[in-house]
Amino acid sequence: MRYFKSDNTAAVSAEIMQAITDANVGTALAYGADRWSDALDTVYGEFFGTPVRVFAVSSGTAANSLSLGTLCPPWGTVLTHTEAHIERDECGAPEFFTGGAKLSLVGGAGAKIAPADLLARLGWFEPHVHGVQPRMLSITQATERGAIYTPQEVSALSKIAHERGMAVHMDGARFANALVAQKVSAAELTWKAGVDVLSFGVIKNGGMNAEAVVFFDPTRVADFEFRRKRAGQLFCKGRYAAVQLLAYLESGIWRRNAERANRLAARIAATAPGLLSEPFATNQVFMKLGDARITALSGEFGFYPWGPAGSGEARFVCSWDTPEEDVDALCAALGKLVS
Amino acid sequence: MRYFKSDNTAAVSAEIMQAITDANVGTALAYGADRWSDALDTVYGEFFGTPVRVFAVSSGTAANSLSLGTLCPPWGTVLTHTEAHIERDECGAPEFFTGGAKLSLVGGAGAKIAPADLLARLGWFEPHVHGVQPRMLSITQATERGAIYTPQEVSALSKIAHERGMAVHMDGARFANALVAQKVSAAELTWKAGVDVLSFGVIKNGGMNAEAVVFFDPTRVADFEFRRKRAGQLFCKGRYAAVQLLAYLESGIWRRNAERANRLAARIAATAPGLLSEPFATNQVFMKLGDARITALSGEFGFYPWGPAGSGEARFVCSWDTPEEDVDALCAALGKLVS
Amino acid sequence: MRYFKSDNTAAVSAEIMQAITDANVGTALAYGADRWSDALDTVYGEFFGTPVRVFAVSSGTAANSLSLGTLCPPWGTVLTHTEAHIERDECGAPEFFTGGAKLSLVGGAGAKIAPADLLARLGWFEPHVHGVQPRMLSITQATERGAIYTPQEVSALSKIAHERGMAVHMDGARFANALVAQKVSAAELTWKAGVDVLSFGVIKNGGMNAEAVVFFDPTRVADFEFRRKRAGQLFCKGRYAAVQLLAYLESGIWRRNAERANRLAARIAATAPGLLSEPFATNQVFMKLGDARITALSGEFGFYPWGPAGSGEARFVCSWDTPEEDVDALCAALGKLVS
Amino acid sequence: MRYFKSDNTAAVSAEIMQAITDANVGTALAYGADRWSDALDTVYGEFFGTPVRVFAVSSGTAANSLSLGTLCPPWGTVLTHTEAHIERDECGAPEFFTGGAKLSLVGGAGAKIAPADLLARLGWFEPHVHGVQPRMLSITQATERGAIYTPQEVSALSKIAHERGMAVHMDGARFANALVAQKVSAAELTWKAGVDVLSFGVIKNGGMNAEAVVFFDPTRVADFEFRRKRAGQLFCKGRYAAVQLLAYLESGIWRRNAERANRLAARIAATAPGLLSEPFATNQVFMKLGDARITALSGEFGFYPWGPAGSGEARFVCSWDTPEEDVDALCAALGKLVS
Repeated sequence: MRYFKSDNTAAVSAEIMQAITDANVGTALAYGADRWSDALDTVYGEFFGTPVRVFAVSSGTAANSLSLGTLCPPWGTVLTHTEAHIERDECGAPEFFTGGAKLSLVGGAGAKIAPADLLARLGWFEPHVHGVQPRMLSITQATERGAIYTPQEVSALSKIAHERGMAVHMDGARFANALVAQKVSAAELTWKAGVDVLSFGVIKNGGMNAEAVVFFDPTRVADFEFRRKRAGQLFCKGRYAAVQLLAYLESGIWRRNAERANRLAARIAATAPGLLSEPFATNQVFMKLGDARITALSGEFGFYPWGPAGSGEARFVCSWDTPEEDVDALCAALGKLVS
Repeated sequence: MRYFKSDNTAAVSAEIMQAITDANVGTALAYGADRWSDALDTVYGEFFGTPVRVFAVSSGTAANSLSLGTLCPPWGTVLTHTEAHIERDECGAPEFFTGGAKLSLVGGAGAKIAPADLLARLGWFEPHVHGVQPRMLSITQATERGAIYTPQEVSALSKIAHERGMAVHMDGARFANALVAQKVSAAELTWKAGVDVLSFGVIKNGGMNAEAVVFFDPTRVADFEFRRKRAGQLFCKGRYAAVQLLAYLESGIWRRNAERANRLAARIAATAPGLLSEPFATNQVFMKLGDARITALSGEFGFYPWGPAGSGEARFVCSWDTPEEDVDALCAALGKLVS
Repeated sequence: MRYFKSDNTAAVSAEIMQAITDANVGTALAYGADRWSDALDTVYGEFFGTPVRVFAVSSGTAANSLSLGTLCPPWGTVLTHTEAHIERDECGAPEFFTGGAKLSLVGGAGAKIAPADLLARLGWFEPHVHGVQPRMLSITQATERGAIYTPQEVSALSKIAHERGMAVHMDGARFANALVAQKVSAAELTWKAGVDVLSFGVIKNGGMNAEAVVFFDPTRVADFEFRRKRAGQLFCKGRYAAVQLLAYLESGIWRRNAERANRLAARIAATAPGLLSEPFATNQVFMKLGDARITALSGEFGFYPWGPAGSGEARFVCSWDTPEEDVDALCAALGKLVS
Repeated sequence: MRYFKSDNTAAVSAEIMQAITDANVGTALAYGADRWSDALDTVYGEFFGTPVRVFAVSSGTAANSLSLGTLCPPWGTVLTHTEAHIERDECGAPEFFTGGAKLSLVGGAGAKIAPADLLARLGWFEPHVHGVQPRMLSITQATERGAIYTPQEVSALSKIAHERGMAVHMDGARFANALVAQKVSAAELTWKAGVDVLSFGVIKNGGMNAEAVVFFDPTRVADFEFRRKRAGQLFCKGRYAAVQLLAYLESGIWRRNAERANRLAARIAATAPGLLSEPFATNQVFMKLGDARITALSGEFGFYPWGPAGSGEARFVCSWDTPEEDVDALCAALGKLVS
């Protein structure tokens, strides 16, 4: 079976494995009092071109939820897209970590939030105690349907949020894929565009089991560290998480891996451009194949039908280690089906 | 500096590293749908000699808190020792995961709970709505002061708990150290003695970043899996956690590592038996050295003064990879100080 | 100013005041150990024609949220209408009391849920740990737009819910208004139609500050009483709440008050049937007046514009004590505006 | 049966009943937008001689827990007495409202916290993420064993708390009893002594079902109002709660009722001064009667044995409406038993 189910089926990059192995020597103080953990703020600060506070956690769900729990009070609400991972795929983690805040949903093509739709949704809320109060905006970069926000788009949304005292969170489980797909800097796509806290995904793009939470405003870290500990998300042997985060940037795999995944996905998209159900942008390809073609492909290829039953849509995801020959095979099969 | 601060400063055992490396080949479905995760119940079931359900999480705090959250309702209380890790060192994680249940504390030498003290504390509770209700007992094996519970002792406590409808949790962050210190089986020390759920520590004894939660009664798993996911404790690339748990048992390091740590600690204890402030049992040594001796040792050795300021007590912990020469040096230094 | 803002601006019925005064003699044990509280199950059991467990709480929000908290686990979700009070007007109380469960929204005219829409929404959920699980259905009777569910409609929804293991909650803040609007019994509209727990509103219909939570299946009470206490919702001097709940049924004001409110509202609705934006059914009247007419009426009458700004819709609510002459005046004013 | 079980078995004072009846005329906007609720800040501000923000809630548990939830983060801990109501008698409400903060217990005679004991307990905490952080002090006035704190004593404790950034909460379920027992002002006993928020008890001392939460620093109200709403503690028909709080102060019953209760209790205490197990101070009398005498009295008098089984201690509480003849009878019976 050739797998295009998700980039989380990938293995760990050799650079990360090597860094882990290199760190596995001798004693290191626990709970982040090691030299690798100490280096995180500096290395990530250089990457983003601004002082940051960086914390390792064990999953994207933890990264997202701890960010929301830190910046949204229990009586607040997080504006996010109807198809957002935090709404659909985290089993209520945001509600758990915030002490019962709500997610308030905004629609939009490509799982992207448009400023007008955000404004319309914000118009529902009134500044009285009967309703929850908008306190955060969370957007996904790249989105759950493979789209990207430009720095200008992020800025437009952040401006709306900040004017209302809302913090801005970016779920960057596939941040690297979104970044390399544009000719912009990490700074332009985050803090310069108003992002307050970023879940910077490492796992899907070559990491093992550590994601980075990046706070661009140190004063907002506030109680994050206490919340991380009481969530069981402070790694005991911190070096093995920190070293993954360091190697991810320092080895350059954040870029190489993302570029490769995007390039492979572009090949798939190019095979049947007329069937694309989303404009192609990163490492996910969405196609309206129809149920018959989906069935035909399912023998050789592992992938997810998408959307409601009978939609005929399919999603193909490439990862940093998807074999080129698997893409060859998929393109060939798709080519035959659409010719 | 020679470190005896804790066993969590140790590196990862070669057997675990090898298993991780071996697993780092090709594609594996995410979130535990991989062959290593699939094997957990079988391998741990054989180890314990009974059917079990086993789940990997990223920290001991998560293992403990998710266990409590699954088996204790928000209006319940967990009876535990005053010095228990869940009370002292987890920043309120049990309260977070249970939705605000209480810990009710029982004293006792060696951080051990005696049946009479448990009964006395239980006598405080009344079956009315004004007070929280005893719903769980949590004991630590080995305890936070290095002591062990015998199977008979665990049974006596479990009997008291079960007669009142309370579940029994064992915090086994150092379970292997407690097990090899006795001539008993893993079964005798757990389910045969009434333990319902065990936090089976792997990290301190050679693992990297995965602990095992072992449910001895499958019907009690109930909502554990949903709670794990919404806590961000379901590993994305599950194989790298599962393989640690498998290698831990299959390679035999659970025993070899624990035996070595205990043996080294025994050497330290034997150097100054008259100064021991706790009977020696596992891989932790507690000594009433006095502040002057503590200061004298602090230049060369890293360790924690213990108890309240001015108590003059110190704790030395050996891990699976503590250098024998570090123990030589500590024994020599201690010998000089006490001669 | 003549008020049609809501039925919660009404005073307390004389029958309730008298009952409170009558109970204000001598000593009564606290926290519900009084003879009035003792009588609740019997009196409500007779009203509903089946054994029930009844509990007093201080607000409709508390009644709803404690019901949800008892029957929905933290990883569950409550299916409810987009315009439901629990979603819009309780500042996240359901999320607070459930420990962070979600509300999942279903649309529909009249703030009513149709079986087909419920089924469609249920189709979104998958039985895996990544998403919250449907565990409850909550419907409002009468709805937030004044509509009623017939027993057949409630049954159809309950059947869908129960087949999936979901409990059924009815928010009956205006249950009496919905009941007297139909030729059916309280039993037919609740437990015979599959309702598991009812928030039976007393306050809006003549009460002072006590609502009834009615469990039709005693085995589901489970942990409700502990949750009520720890929410600060167990009245200290329980008699003053219990006596309100008793007098509400025993004096017959539940019916008289509701009938009067409905009758007055019917007069308003009949004044301008062509402007009704919702079919008239209970004690709420919704009209598309247009902004000009709304402004014209606002000098003399207190009422809420409804829906989004510019919708031109207005809501008029009659209560048990709305002065007949206020209705005369409103009908006259409306008549002039629409002629 | 003559009752001395608690002051919560009392009826409602005529002054409160009259005020409720007087307010039961015509329409009043809901949720606190009525003229009685509007007057609360002014009337209580005059009573305390400083600007305050005052909120009505339905129970003492709600008053306490909402105060703690507002001022203590989830990773914080509230220092309080081992015998505090919030620890013993609220079924974990503080943990629920704070999102899982801990209570950390301090012993001391008379259920009073001494500065030295508070300091000693504070010495346990370390400013790292592994442990919860002291963020509040909660003291009870009068205490659960009838004792009072002088302004000097409150000040000494508040100073310790404030120096560490901790807020100070006073559980004043019997605040009036403590106030009239001393020749001090309400101001001296609260904000001038460093109290940040007071649960000002009304119910036990003549009220029906409303307690006052008094914030002395308006800036600390912060999110209290949202939390009150989402706890179902915002009264729908707010006038009936507000009017209780107003009448309590304006009629002077806060003083008359408390003085009477204290005076009656003093008569009981004076009957057998040698048997007092606590120095007498307010409206509670604690005596070491021995089990035989307790049994002898139990036929005619309703009261609670106190402390652990076999302690032989009993508690007698007088309320504002305890019949003088009941006290006559109890004094006579006690006199016979001890002669």
